[in-house]
Amino acid sequence: MNFIRNIMKPRSEEDEKFYGELKIILGFSPNNILIYRKAFVHRSIKVTDEIGNPQNYERLEFLGDAMLGAVIASYLFKKVPSGNEGYLTQMRSKIVSREHLNELGRDLNLIRFVQSNISKSKFGENINGNIFEALIGAIYLDKGYKYCKRFTYKRVIKPYIDIPKLEGKITSYKSLFIEWCQKQKTDFKYEVYDDTGMDTIRHFSVKLYLEDKVIAKGRATSKKKAEEIASKRAYYAFQKEISNN
Amino acid sequence: MNFIRNIMKPRSEEDEKFYGELKIILGFSPNNILIYRKAFVHRSIKVTDEIGNPQNYERLEFLGDAMLGAVIASYLFKKVPSGNEGYLTQMRSKIVSREHLNELGRDLNLIRFVQSNISKSKFGENINGNIFEALIGAIYLDKGYKYCKRFTYKRVIKPYIDIPKLEGKITSYKSLFIEWCQKQKTDFKYEVYDDTGMDTIRHFSVKLYLEDKVIAKGRATSKKKAEEIASKRAYYAFQKEISNN
Repeated sequence: MNFIRNIMKPRSEEDEKFYGELKIILGFSPNNILIYRKAFVHRSIKVTDEIGNPQNYERLEFLGDAMLGAVIASYLFKKVPSGNEGYLTQMRSKIVSREHLNELGRDLNLIRFVQSNISKSKFGENINGNIFEALIGAIYLDKGYKYCKRFTYKRVIKPYIDIPKLEGKITSYKSLFIEWCQKQKTDFKYEVYDDTGMDTIRHFSVKLYLEDKVIAKGRATSKKKAEEIASKRAYYAFQKEISNN
Repeated sequence: MNFIRNIMKPRSEEDEKFYGELKIILGFSPNNILIYRKAFVHRSIKVTDEIGNPQNYERLEFLGDAMLGAVIASYLFKKVPSGNEGYLTQMRSKIVSREHLNELGRDLNLIRFVQSNISKSKFGENINGNIFEALIGAIYLDKGYKYCKRFTYKRVIKPYIDIPKLEGKITSYKSLFIEWCQKQKTDFKYEVYDDTGMDTIRHFSVKLYLEDKVIAKGRATSKKKAEEIASKRAYYAFQKEISNN
């Protein structure tokens, strides 16, 4: 029951650490870290409040799911003025798919914060997405809708949402770029290296060369993603030429 | 195409009328009534903006649905601290059911604002709920999340949401009250009268008598609802006695 003591006593050494890491993930200062603690309490812990209500992340997950849905809806509404209701609904489903949410939670390594009485190896994949949603629920309770929006832009929309890709028009910027290079008979090279920097999560950086010139860079939590980011940037820089290909 | 002229020229006489009626429904002053106009444009009108995007209520309906879902989720989260994720999901589905949204739209008589090229008799029932959602979408665009919340509390939560009833524990306060009176062998009487007052929508008021004393009142857009409101008030006033029944 060490955990319960910790959540009841703010500003212990562990709290300080949690606060610091959380702040990096959130991109702003949380007010009440006790709320965020709950976003990582697995039901196996069986903590209840003074009147017996269970205190685990499942209720926060419900709340976060609704907030995420609202933020993504308003983003798509504004971003795609030509999309009808059916299109918007479909795009939103892709963004908030179980698979995508799991990826988001996994990339932030949220599982390191989880308090549980069962082994983490027994969690299954979906816990990553569930605690990602619970974190958004906690943000809503702590700071309101505006901050849910801010967090969602930072962690979901900006790094991952790409309308042509979601529409299935482009499945990989890397293959599009390589194809173009081959047709042009131009040399290219992806140079990938480990670049964890100040992050607690492993990151990779990539430089994309066209002939001997660096034309784009990318940085992400996997080599594949870093390459895709650099390719996308190169694609947009060379868009006219690639599209006329 | 009289309608298009109207939406393009703010502050016509018709705009003034729309603005006034809208303000009563919303409970606050809208900033940009052109946004609200769109919430009532049926697809049959075939209006597009300067670059060809359709301007009807369907996109706003998508946005409003998401905002309503978020507001109701946060309300239930706070209101029912003992409810788990499954319970909260189920309660929300009941509140935002097609049937309930249609009722909400119908009660506000939103259909009077609809601009369409087909006869209103051909709309079908669901248009009431659809434009109710579109109105919430318009509120979000015009005034932000806070006002969506305010409107939803005023028009959905406060007048209609009743947790015991949603849970199916109580299906009718009227029958509960009548049953109790019969067991007690006490006379009661519902006195209903038309009471439109300053409203543009027809309203009914009811006085509920126990013996010869008025013990509760209700007011709503149908006789049945007004009676139910009065019965609910009586129920809560006499709760202990009725529950021990």
